[in-house]
Amino acid sequence: MVTAIEWTGERLRLLDQTRLPAETRWVEARTADEVADAIRTMVVRGAPAIGVAAAFGVALWARGLAGAGAPRLDAAAFVAAFEPVRARLAATRPTAVNLFWALDRMARVVREAAPLAPGGRADRLAAEARAILDEDLEANRRMGRLGAELIPDGARILTHCNAGALATAGYGTALGVIRAAREAGKRIEVLADETRPFLQGARLTTWELREDGIPVTLVTDNMAGHLMQRRRVDLVIVGADRIAANGDVANKIGTYGLAVLAKEHGLPFYVAAPVSTFDLSLVSGEEIPIEERDPREVTTLAGRAIAPEGVPALHPAFDVTPARLVTAIITEAGIARPPTRERLRELAASAGTTAA
Amino acid sequence: MVTAIEWTGERLRLLDQTRLPAETRWVEARTADEVADAIRTMVVRGAPAIGVAAAFGVALWARGLAGAGAPRLDAAAFVAAFEPVRARLAATRPTAVNLFWALDRMARVVREAAPLAPGGRADRLAAEARAILDEDLEANRRMGRLGAELIPDGARILTHCNAGALATAGYGTALGVIRAAREAGKRIEVLADETRPFLQGARLTTWELREDGIPVTLVTDNMAGHLMQRRRVDLVIVGADRIAANGDVANKIGTYGLAVLAKEHGLPFYVAAPVSTFDLSLVSGEEIPIEERDPREVTTLAGRAIAPEGVPALHPAFDVTPARLVTAIITEAGIARPPTRERLRELAASAGTTAA
Repeated sequence: MVTAIEWTGERLRLLDQTRLPAETRWVEARTADEVADAIRTMVVRGAPAIGVAAAFGVALWARGLAGAGAPRLDAAAFVAAFEPVRARLAATRPTAVNLFWALDRMARVVREAAPLAPGGRADRLAAEARAILDEDLEANRRMGRLGAELIPDGARILTHCNAGALATAGYGTALGVIRAAREAGKRIEVLADETRPFLQGARLTTWELREDGIPVTLVTDNMAGHLMQRRRVDLVIVGADRIAANGDVANKIGTYGLAVLAKEHGLPFYVAAPVSTFDLSLVSGEEIPIEERDPREVTTLAGRAIAPEGVPALHPAFDVTPARLVTAIITEAGIARPPTRERLRELAASAGTTAA
Repeated sequence: MVTAIEWTGERLRLLDQTRLPAETRWVEARTADEVADAIRTMVVRGAPAIGVAAAFGVALWARGLAGAGAPRLDAAAFVAAFEPVRARLAATRPTAVNLFWALDRMARVVREAAPLAPGGRADRLAAEARAILDEDLEANRRMGRLGAELIPDGARILTHCNAGALATAGYGTALGVIRAAREAGKRIEVLADETRPFLQGARLTTWELREDGIPVTLVTDNMAGHLMQRRRVDLVIVGADRIAANGDVANKIGTYGLAVLAKEHGLPFYVAAPVSTFDLSLVSGEEIPIEERDPREVTTLAGRAIAPEGVPALHPAFDVTPARLVTAIITEAGIARPPTRERLRELAASAGTTAA
C-alpha cells in the first residue's frame, strides 16, 4: 500500500506531494521547523496527514533537545519552550482542524513528559506521534469497512481532491471507503476531479488508485454537472478538513459546488473523515477559517504562467458545504446519516476523543 | 478594439488563440483546408468566430479556382466541387451551429454565383463572408446595448470561457454586454473562470478585458459555488454554441454547473448570443451533439503531463443548460426573458434569419 509518511526514529520522511507523479522524491525533516515548512509548502497535505506530520514535528523538537550540546531544560522550561514550536507548526495552515487536534494532544504529552529526562521526553513524544499515526491508519480501515456498505456494486464514484493514502497515515478516508468496497468484491469505477489549482486529483488520486489497480478516469472540475446530467455518476464521496458541530463540512475548494450538483441530480453526497476532523467548538461552518493561498498558484501551473502577467486572482483553498447537502458523514466510530448535531456528539463521545 | 480575424482580400489572418497570451502570433490561411485546420486545432474558436472563418474558407476556395492554372469549372461543376469543401469545413467541430449556419448561407451564394466567371464567383463569396463578419460585429454591438440594461451599476459578474471579441467578429457576446455596460458608465468587476482544459478564461478573457481596461480577476472553475455563497457574485453571463428551439443552451463545459449554482443562490443567469446560434430544428438541448475532444488536452497542460502516463480522461467540450435555468437570452433582435419556444421563434423571425 502507498504511504507518504515514514518515521525512522530520528527523521520524518515525507513523500513530496508537490512532485508526484512526475517524480517520487522523499523529503527528510529533522526539525520541527522543517516539518512546518513541509506542511506550508504542501510537500505533505491532507487534513489527517498534516496532523500526523505536526505530531512528529513535536517529537523531532524533543529529540533535538535530547541531543549532545542541547540546553538542559527543567520541566517548566521544557513546557515553556514548546509554545513557540507549537505556534510555528500551528501557523502553517488554518483550515484543517486535525493539525490543531494533534498539537493539542502532543501538548498534553509535553506536560506529562516534562518531569522525565530529555531522552525519556523524546521517546514519549515519538511514541505519541506514532500512536496518532497508527490510530489514523486504523480509523481509516474502520471507516472503510463501515462506508463500504453504502457503496453499491458497480458504482461510478466521483471524488474531489485527494482523500487517500497520501492524505492520511495510509489507506485514506474517501479513497479508503472505495478501497474497502473493492476489497469486499464490489466493482467500482472512480471519476477523479483534477482539482485545480494544485491538481491533487490529477496528480495524486489517479496515481494512488492506479497503484492499487482501481479503475480511475480523470475529469476537469467543471465536468461534474454534465456527467451527472448524463447519468454517468452514481454518488460523490469526499474527505473533510473540518466538520462543525452542526455537520457543516469544510473541504477542498469545489466541494460545495459538487454537493449542490449532487442534490440537483438526487445523488448521494458522502463525506468520509475521522472524528479528529470534528470541531464541535464551532456552531456552524460559517466559523471555519478558510485559508487564502498565494494567487500565483492559480496564475501559474508547474512554474509556467497561464494568464497574462499581473492579472489578479483569488485562491480560497477550501469551501464549506452545509450539512443539509451531506447525505452522511462516515467516521471510524459510525455513520452520521443525516449528520445532525446530536449524532456528531454521539460519535465524538464513542470515539473517546476530546474533539468536543 | 481587439480583433482576431482579418481578411486581406487574398488571405484570412487569424490571431492564434492557442498561443495567447504568451505570444501574439497571426496565422495566415490561404485555402479552405488551412481554415479547416485552424478551426479544428482551435487557432480560431468561439461559435460566431468559427462561422465567420468557415465563410472565408469558402471564399478562399473560390479565389483559388479563379487563379491562373486552376481548372475551369462550369456552373454545375462549380456547385458540385463545393460539396467536399463544405464537408471538410463542416467536419471540424460539431457543436457550434454558427459553423453550419454560415456554411448554409455560403452554399446559397455558391449556387447564385455559379453562372458568373471565376473572378466574379470569388468576389461574390468574399463579399458574403465579409457581410457575415460585419453583421456579427453589428449584432454584438446591438446585443451589448440591449443586454447592458440588465447589468446593475457595481455588478460583480462571473463569466466562463471566452465569449468576447476573440470569439466573434469583434466586441463579443457576453463580454460585449459587459463592454456596453461599461460604456454606459456602469462600474463593473469581472470574475473570469479559468475554463479548463483549454484555459480560455485564464488566457483569453483576462487578456482582452485588460486590453480594454475592464477590471478582471481570475478564479478556478471550482470556486464559483464558494464565491456565490459568500455573496461575491451578482450575476453570471456566458455565450452559447447552440440554442435549441425550447431555449436549452449548449456552451463550454462547466456552464451547466454554473447555472445550477446560480439557481441555488437566486442569481440571474444570462446567455448572450446572436440569432445565428439558434437551431430551431432541434426540439431540445438533448439533441445537440456534444463534441468529445482528445483526452490529452485534459492530461497535459501546455505540453506537460499533469497526470500519470496512461491515465484515461474524459473531454466533453460542451454541456447543455436547460432553459429553466436561464434567466434570459440576449440577442441582437431582443431579449428572451424567459427563453420560451414562442419568444425564440419571434426573435428568429424579426432577425430575418433562416435559423428556423
